[in-house]
Amino acid sequence: MAAPVWSVDPRTGKQREQVATEATAEEVDRAVRDAHAVRGALADRTVRAAFLRTAADLLDEAGEHVIEAADAETALGPGRLTGELARTTYQLRSFADTVDEGAFLDILIDHPDPDAGPVPRPDLRRYKVPLGVVAVYSASNFPLAFSVPGGDTASALAAGCPVVVKAHPDHPATSELCACLLRRAAARHGLPEAVVGLVHGFDAGLELVRHPLVAAAGFTGSVRGGRALFDAAAARPAPIPFHGELGSLNPVVVTEAAASERAERIGTGLAGSVTLGVGQFCVKPGLVLAPTGEAGDRLLKSLTEAVSDTAEGVLLDPRMREAFVAGVRARAALTGVQSPVTPGESGETAVSAGFLTVPAARLADGEDHDLLLEECFGPVTVVARYADEAEVSAVLGRLPGNLTATVHLGAQEAAQSEGPAARLLAELIPLAGRVLVNGWPTGVAVAPAQHHGGPYPATTSASTSVGGTAIERWLRPVVFQSTPEALLPPELREDNPLRLPRRVDGRREN
Amino acid sequence: MAAPVWSVDPRTGKQREQVATEATAEEVDRAVRDAHAVRGALADRTVRAAFLRTAADLLDEAGEHVIEAADAETALGPGRLTGELARTTYQLRSFADTVDEGAFLDILIDHPDPDAGPVPRPDLRRYKVPLGVVAVYSASNFPLAFSVPGGDTASALAAGCPVVVKAHPDHPATSELCACLLRRAAARHGLPEAVVGLVHGFDAGLELVRHPLVAAAGFTGSVRGGRALFDAAAARPAPIPFHGELGSLNPVVVTEAAASERAERIGTGLAGSVTLGVGQFCVKPGLVLAPTGEAGDRLLKSLTEAVSDTAEGVLLDPRMREAFVAGVRARAALTGVQSPVTPGESGETAVSAGFLTVPAARLADGEDHDLLLEECFGPVTVVARYADEAEVSAVLGRLPGNLTATVHLGAQEAAQSEGPAARLLAELIPLAGRVLVNGWPTGVAVAPAQHHGGPYPATTSASTSVGGTAIERWLRPVVFQSTPEALLPPELREDNPLRLPRRVDGRREN
Repeated sequence: MAAPVWSVDPRTGKQREQVATEATAEEVDRAVRDAHAVRGALADRTVRAAFLRTAADLLDEAGEHVIEAADAETALGPGRLTGELARTTYQLRSFADTVDEGAFLDILIDHPDPDAGPVPRPDLRRYKVPLGVVAVYSASNFPLAFSVPGGDTASALAAGCPVVVKAHPDHPATSELCACLLRRAAARHGLPEAVVGLVHGFDAGLELVRHPLVAAAGFTGSVRGGRALFDAAAARPAPIPFHGELGSLNPVVVTEAAASERAERIGTGLAGSVTLGVGQFCVKPGLVLAPTGEAGDRLLKSLTEAVSDTAEGVLLDPRMREAFVAGVRARAALTGVQSPVTPGESGETAVSAGFLTVPAARLADGEDHDLLLEECFGPVTVVARYADEAEVSAVLGRLPGNLTATVHLGAQEAAQSEGPAARLLAELIPLAGRVLVNGWPTGVAVAPAQHHGGPYPATTSASTSVGGTAIERWLRPVVFQSTPEALLPPELREDNPLRLPRRVDGRREN
Repeated sequence: MAAPVWSVDPRTGKQREQVATEATAEEVDRAVRDAHAVRGALADRTVRAAFLRTAADLLDEAGEHVIEAADAETALGPGRLTGELARTTYQLRSFADTVDEGAFLDILIDHPDPDAGPVPRPDLRRYKVPLGVVAVYSASNFPLAFSVPGGDTASALAAGCPVVVKAHPDHPATSELCACLLRRAAARHGLPEAVVGLVHGFDAGLELVRHPLVAAAGFTGSVRGGRALFDAAAARPAPIPFHGELGSLNPVVVTEAAASERAERIGTGLAGSVTLGVGQFCVKPGLVLAPTGEAGDRLLKSLTEAVSDTAEGVLLDPRMREAFVAGVRARAALTGVQSPVTPGESGETAVSAGFLTVPAARLADGEDHDLLLEECFGPVTVVARYADEAEVSAVLGRLPGNLTATVHLGAQEAAQSEGPAARLLAELIPLAGRVLVNGWPTGVAVAPAQHHGGPYPATTSASTSVGGTAIERWLRPVVFQSTPEALLPPELREDNPLRLPRRVDGRREN
């Protein structure tokens, strides 16, 4: 008997309805084979772009229903989910634009040249082709934007790859609903519904990454889960790229000058970023380096007030609540750690926000306090008080990879291209894929230049899961050598019939 | 006692001189730490480009000496090595041009826009930064172009990454000489010599890929060796990208029409490609699908003549000779396999070229003949005779990934955008990173559009080790959010002081 998959209300802990059953190995195999069989249907870029736009339209049309479904099983609230839906449909439409524009094909053409190089150069025409079926692993904390209709699905479909999504157990009903809308959108453009597969279940997720016809995978989740799947992808007879976003501490450094100038604003801003979405963002600032002394004290005072004023919230599932409570407790028990506002359980299912403090010297010191350098999912952050620049460097030198690294600077510091601020920035760049000045890492903009990735464990590859270049993950280059015009794909024909941006003999065309 | 590293003459099997000792774990650690410590020295693109050009100049100046050293321990011959040196220096200069031009930085700038997207877009400026120390694994068969001064070294240095090269035991003296020249070039530009490290020894190679400060690796070699290193790279606490070129069969399909039109030319061309460099090229055609019948017979006749006329040669080392002889023997022993010209041992150290034939139906059939679908290093190929298109498809459907896939077409076929040739090409594209029509895969041109990579086991990643885009392997994107002009790297400043190609708000600049 296949295990039932239930939709659960995290506000009450009660099962709402049985949504599906966990996919057996045979069902996973069928989903992948079906997707693989129809991959050619996505070859037409015009159809692909139209499909993505229709998917966005159908999600918008069903918006109320989608948000209701997602809220019922995630407790993220209609406000946050309305924003997430807008982000999701914007993302789908952005990738449609990317497909239309065609720069992602990265077309390079070198004409034959007997004198270029030590051997005569033949006619070479390169572009990128889709990898094949992509396995997408949904995230708990984004039932839409990083799940069935999310960024990985959108970028993979944009690249011309069918997807098989592994639903997250925290939102199976939302997953089914969204898959249904995506398939309806596909059908409207004459595409087979199998371009979007959906499976439920932990074992199904492992089967999926091991399936010989799965060509790549995208994942957003925990270090433990992501690493297990990464390992499985690498251990295959034919390994596949595994683009996983695993975990990030997102350090923030507040300089003495910044604290002196605007301690209150920084304290309040920090509280907002830490508690947004009940602290369930992958870019939540999890470690803040703030100066000791009066300005830092003021920052903490305003943080204390803002955090204390924050309404309690419900985490995505009871397991996360347990992990949050246990994680906070273990951290608070370390020598020298204080909790000015103790985060923790509140009532039957909710949690309250808070933060811990620790002398930065403790973190720089040794391994006793390394737990504080690990992400703790939920509405908590650690403020490490530093005495001088050297302590900041020492702590930064011990950090693993991150999605983001932030610095808050004083006005004068920000205007000097050499000095402490420049040195600090130089220390932050190796730590993260996004570096922010005087801002907060939450609220990741969907934009062509966006990069959402970073050194391990932030991501398992150098690529991004947000922004225009996310499409690169699902493509590989192929070069055609001395291929007759009639047999070239239209993208590579001499007269550029599709008016695509190309680089021909080193010069840009379009 | 550290194990001695000897330079050996493959023509006699005699030790020539002790060149070095195998690096201990401490020595590997020191080489990596030294390289890591000086990585900042490569930050200046102008200096980097000049360094690469000087390295090419010094290699050219020492050409006679370099070629002599390489010939003495590889037996590849001065002719082939002169060409390889030209390829190597051309490659270094090409990457210097790539560095100067700066398109590889992939600069994307999005200005703030409150209306772009569901959340207001902040100022985002993305470019790419070097990953850090790159481990380069030298190839046996290219003592220059894929070894110490080879493509991986050139592209990594171009990206701004110091390298630590693991020398190949087949050419330790050449490796030492080239490392010395590279370091001299570095010193001429005020760069620390530690930007190019060199270690010898199998264990040192494993230590290298496991070293926490090694950020990426490039490899060219066998499936066994490459996979072991790939696995080690993936199993690290923090996994790193491992760009390995492991093995490739490089299938060739000759259509009935092509054979009818020019059987003799194809047979002779095939013999040349198979026996070039004593069959020790990664793109040697290892499986040829030729039609049964009269035209195919003529092709085989001319192949027989040309291969029989080929002078015997010396393989890179005795281990390879043994593997070649055993590999040919095992293949020849399979049911239905014939050897019109039997390749094998000749004298004390040489081998003679040859080829095997087999009915294509045997390959399509089952697993009994799968050995014929594995690369056999050395001057041998397998000609599979097919009766119809279906047999070709059946064989192609069983192939692993390849660097190249080639088709020889009749004149009329080549002119038709629909029909059997187009169908064939569509079957070849999923199999390889380079698709050739009416050519031979050996002689890989160094050119911006070149792609030398393919589905596993051809390469372990979707990237290339030859051509302009090889530099992409050693970089990762970083985006700066809302960063004051004074603190931005010059590459990302608003007025584009370095005149770099960029994409600003979706539009190309320069």
